[in-house]
Amino acid sequence: MSDEIRIGLEVAAASAAELGVRLDEAKSAGYEFVASPLTNAALRQATQTVSAPTFGLPENRAFALDQVVLDRVDWADSVVGRHAAWADLSDAQTRIAAEMVLQREATWAMHLGVPATILMLPTELSRVPNVARYVNNLLRSPSYTQLWIQAPMTTTIRDETEGVASCDEDASWECWNLLRTLCGHNARVLLALELTADLPDEGHLQRWFAEPLVALVFAKDIWLRNAKGFPVLGKCHQATVRRMLKRQPQVIVRAGTHPGAKLEHYQQYVRHLARTQPPPNACEAFAVGYQDYLQAPLQPLMDNLESATYQVFEQDPVKYAQYEKAVYHALLDRVPAGSDVVTTVMVVGAGRGPLVTRSLAAADKAQRAVRVYAVEKNPNAYVTLQRMKQTQWQDRVTVIWSDMREWDAPIKADILVSELLGSFGDNELSPECLDGAQRFLKPDGISIPSSYTAYVAPLSSSKLYTEVAAFGQEARFETPYVVLFNAVHELTAPQPTWSFHHPLRDADTGDLIGNAKNVFTLAQSATIHGIAGYFDTVLYKDVTLSIHPATFSEGMFSWFPIYFPFKTPIYAPAGSKIETHFWRLTDCKKTWYEWSSIVTTSDASPESADSSSNAGSRTRLVGATPIHNVGGVSSWIGL
Amino acid sequence: MSDEIRIGLEVAAASAAELGVRLDEAKSAGYEFVASPLTNAALRQATQTVSAPTFGLPENRAFALDQVVLDRVDWADSVVGRHAAWADLSDAQTRIAAEMVLQREATWAMHLGVPATILMLPTELSRVPNVARYVNNLLRSPSYTQLWIQAPMTTTIRDETEGVASCDEDASWECWNLLRTLCGHNARVLLALELTADLPDEGHLQRWFAEPLVALVFAKDIWLRNAKGFPVLGKCHQATVRRMLKRQPQVIVRAGTHPGAKLEHYQQYVRHLARTQPPPNACEAFAVGYQDYLQAPLQPLMDNLESATYQVFEQDPVKYAQYEKAVYHALLDRVPAGSDVVTTVMVVGAGRGPLVTRSLAAADKAQRAVRVYAVEKNPNAYVTLQRMKQTQWQDRVTVIWSDMREWDAPIKADILVSELLGSFGDNELSPECLDGAQRFLKPDGISIPSSYTAYVAPLSSSKLYTEVAAFGQEARFETPYVVLFNAVHELTAPQPTWSFHHPLRDADTGDLIGNAKNVFTLAQSATIHGIAGYFDTVLYKDVTLSIHPATFSEGMFSWFPIYFPFKTPIYAPAGSKIETHFWRLTDCKKTWYEWSSIVTTSDASPESADSSSNAGSRTRLVGATPIHNVGGVSSWIGL
Repeated sequence: MSDEIRIGLEVAAASAAELGVRLDEAKSAGYEFVASPLTNAALRQATQTVSAPTFGLPENRAFALDQVVLDRVDWADSVVGRHAAWADLSDAQTRIAAEMVLQREATWAMHLGVPATILMLPTELSRVPNVARYVNNLLRSPSYTQLWIQAPMTTTIRDETEGVASCDEDASWECWNLLRTLCGHNARVLLALELTADLPDEGHLQRWFAEPLVALVFAKDIWLRNAKGFPVLGKCHQATVRRMLKRQPQVIVRAGTHPGAKLEHYQQYVRHLARTQPPPNACEAFAVGYQDYLQAPLQPLMDNLESATYQVFEQDPVKYAQYEKAVYHALLDRVPAGSDVVTTVMVVGAGRGPLVTRSLAAADKAQRAVRVYAVEKNPNAYVTLQRMKQTQWQDRVTVIWSDMREWDAPIKADILVSELLGSFGDNELSPECLDGAQRFLKPDGISIPSSYTAYVAPLSSSKLYTEVAAFGQEARFETPYVVLFNAVHELTAPQPTWSFHHPLRDADTGDLIGNAKNVFTLAQSATIHGIAGYFDTVLYKDVTLSIHPATFSEGMFSWFPIYFPFKTPIYAPAGSKIETHFWRLTDCKKTWYEWSSIVTTSDASPESADSSSNAGSRTRLVGATPIHNVGGVSSWIGL
Repeated sequence: MSDEIRIGLEVAAASAAELGVRLDEAKSAGYEFVASPLTNAALRQATQTVSAPTFGLPENRAFALDQVVLDRVDWADSVVGRHAAWADLSDAQTRIAAEMVLQREATWAMHLGVPATILMLPTELSRVPNVARYVNNLLRSPSYTQLWIQAPMTTTIRDETEGVASCDEDASWECWNLLRTLCGHNARVLLALELTADLPDEGHLQRWFAEPLVALVFAKDIWLRNAKGFPVLGKCHQATVRRMLKRQPQVIVRAGTHPGAKLEHYQQYVRHLARTQPPPNACEAFAVGYQDYLQAPLQPLMDNLESATYQVFEQDPVKYAQYEKAVYHALLDRVPAGSDVVTTVMVVGAGRGPLVTRSLAAADKAQRAVRVYAVEKNPNAYVTLQRMKQTQWQDRVTVIWSDMREWDAPIKADILVSELLGSFGDNELSPECLDGAQRFLKPDGISIPSSYTAYVAPLSSSKLYTEVAAFGQEARFETPYVVLFNAVHELTAPQPTWSFHHPLRDADTGDLIGNAKNVFTLAQSATIHGIAGYFDTVLYKDVTLSIHPATFSEGMFSWFPIYFPFKTPIYAPAGSKIETHFWRLTDCKKTWYEWSSIVTTSDASPESADSSSNAGSRTRLVGATPIHNVGGVSSWIGL
């Protein structure tokens, strides 16, 4: 990663000649590019002095040569162009001229093949709509040149009466959020985030992580000087930069003003931070390439898994060890030491046999006699199971080719072992399958897993949302995805929706149906793009597995979380309550989920309180999504 | 209208035999149908005593004969079936059984061909999601049988401590609004509105008018007794019923309990109210069939109008009288009495000539000499103009076949008369046309109209929204429509966006561009489905025309309002501010509008106030639409 980082230097060139000098300096100092204004004060002056309709542009269409800073196509790929900061789209007097200047700059940059231009985001809500309209219009045309919207991480509020300044953690993000909402959540609205001297708290920082970060801009006043006189960052800034660099943004450095600090020191320091990232752990190494990549959940009952899929999951360092531990303790509890009772263990959905091998190992360790049945419906996996029996398991194992829901078992099992769990626990139909297999479990028999619970939390991620939108089909917004979260803000701690316990006590349709309402309170405002789903499971007593963030089974990579998207993102003001509603439904052919979200405030705001005495304490709607995937119309798991 | 009204009687039949008796009674008393429960207490009892999985339905699928009230297909079209009120979808214990009962009732009603079934809306927000999920699922299948959701106009809040009851004007509508939002604004979610003893105030009443009203249910306790002992309604209830009946709902009457009142008296009274509606005025008569019907705005520059279109507009009793008055006063002001100066009047866009005729009449009345030019680009209308010259106008008029923007006029005009205005003022490109025609207006010449202003107001209308949605194309949500508002709630007084004055002072592109931000404050919560547009115009001095609701030119029917839809309705809590942003944009080929809306609150609610001192007074976003019709991608007016 560290080798791939592209670092640019901020320069304030006022002419083509000066840009050439600065560019040479920057390249000699080890920078890949510079960020420079595209035009200069001559254009500004011309625009101010010449009246409409030409707005200072000769013939209304072209720049004069002395108005442009970047004018050489051979420099273009080493320059990110800054749009004229004085071009004010919100001011009624200058609006039309400003738009013409920006538009000309943009097309000029496209003409030259500049990789990106940067437009500053206003930090007042009222100035955003006109910028959004301009951005929207520009992004209609396909272009090689990206548009980066630069927003500061925090802004400063000056209280004139008391003469103090305080840090505002919301204004910038709120403006950014309004901009992308007005732009219809267009995936081409990209964020160049400015690292400011004041950093936001963790919650506000995470909010930025969920945005489409394309560049990180280092402000001038964040640089400190270490004992040797080199420019460095403070500890908090270092940590923030390290986290941000995992998102692989380009970097733009504004050099500080310390005497003695050389240009190359800044880029060397940033590269140092990138190079000294902690190395990826086993999970992270496995995860490379999977971040924010949307996968359809498995359809294990309808489709037969491929060998490569088994191969991947069998390598999990945690999952099978826990299964072995669970079988071990179940055997110890069920049969006294020294007994010659043979325990019947049935592995249902045995795949290529890892749970069979682990069950045998557990029996050996526990010194208990077992008879193992391996039941598998996949004819291809069944071939492997026969090979395993022949080469390893021998007579201790009986291999059966059958769907567990239909198998006519010759005897009843003491222990039923299965690994039918999905990212949302029950989403690969473990309840339905074990409901079918329960016929051949003894009344006092043990199911491993003995229970599992699904969890949900509201999630913010413009990245995931635009990935789904890119499919271009409404039905894709009504489909849950298995995805390794990266550019995601998990807004609150997850809450449980429902649990399944095996054996099912009184098996009927009702036991397979779920309905959950969860209520989350948000400390800060957020745009919610969907719901994150997790699960944990009790395999046996205290032997558990979990992908719940707080109890995650360290090192396990078998399951990524699940993402239930919203058709339209929903905005939740700070302090509002977000309800998520989930339904697990089933008919004789399929099982599916429906979901929706409702945002409410518990109290009327001062303005909305009317004279009636009870209006103050009422729940008030802020917004709601439609219910997604009605009747399983867009996504379902086949039975 | 009065003859078409369908009135049903509420009955509480408990068996098929009883339903037969009640139906006979109702028909003898002049009712078209009855509203009756579909099933009875026997089903309820069975459901409570038998455990899952059968839920009291034999074999889980069918009703027992003694559980159904309606069982004869020949009665079906005279019965609207009420769903079991005891089937509670929100209660975790009864939910599954309740859903099975409701579903069976619905399919039973469909099987018999009942025209509609009625489901009661819960009046607590927390009970709505499960009802919405059920409704959503039911409405997936096409069916002859409609589903009516019955909601009371107001609910009663009892304050237990003080022992008093007060009227709640919001709870019922909020639940209704949540239901249809969760159902994705499905056009098949229909409202049966219950007329309660407590009526809401005008604002809250109007909110109901914008909903898809299919039936009006008269509560038992609204009936009074007049001097002769007949059941009647109080004045407010009468007025409300009369307004509601204009929407042509079906009516369900719950008879009161006055001794002596016969069943027929109630239906006779309702028919009396319908029959004694005030007769339609000229406008209303013209408007029949146009209510809520979406028309694309005219493209007068690109298309040539048909003769029938001219014919309709020429009949307006107000518009041309005002034009004549405007020309008359302009002539009086411009030329002293007795002068022999000949005033050159140019009618640009003369059509079939009504403004020519009116200009001549004005000149006759003012006793001023005029020379009139009639300039028209439509070759078909030009034929008619020649006929008019030959048969009526003679030598006083010169007829020219030309586009006014290109016409090489032989002399300059004193007075330029045009009728290029659309429902939004400038939306038929009057500014662009008059900008082109201004070349041949004398520097001190007069343009009639001399100015016009566009107005906007946020609008609530599930009817209009679902009409646009029915087109099934995203682009149709980015198109403005000319439409006569009926099932519409105009939420606040309109505000001006921009004005055009003629002659244009310093004609350039900028003069033809508009940008307006308007801020509206809502006293009560609303779902906003788009923006209503209006215009007024000053023809000359105090001679005006207006379709602004407050200054409407009584009797004029030439223009309906314009409706700018939203892709997704946006919810605005009570007390929030709604900003509308409008842009009028133009390039060398077309002119178009872009629009969006932002909802904010000015103050944080108590919960969201954090410790920072300045958070309390900030503008906070509640929601925003995307900007619609970016770059004129979906709708535009060709130049």
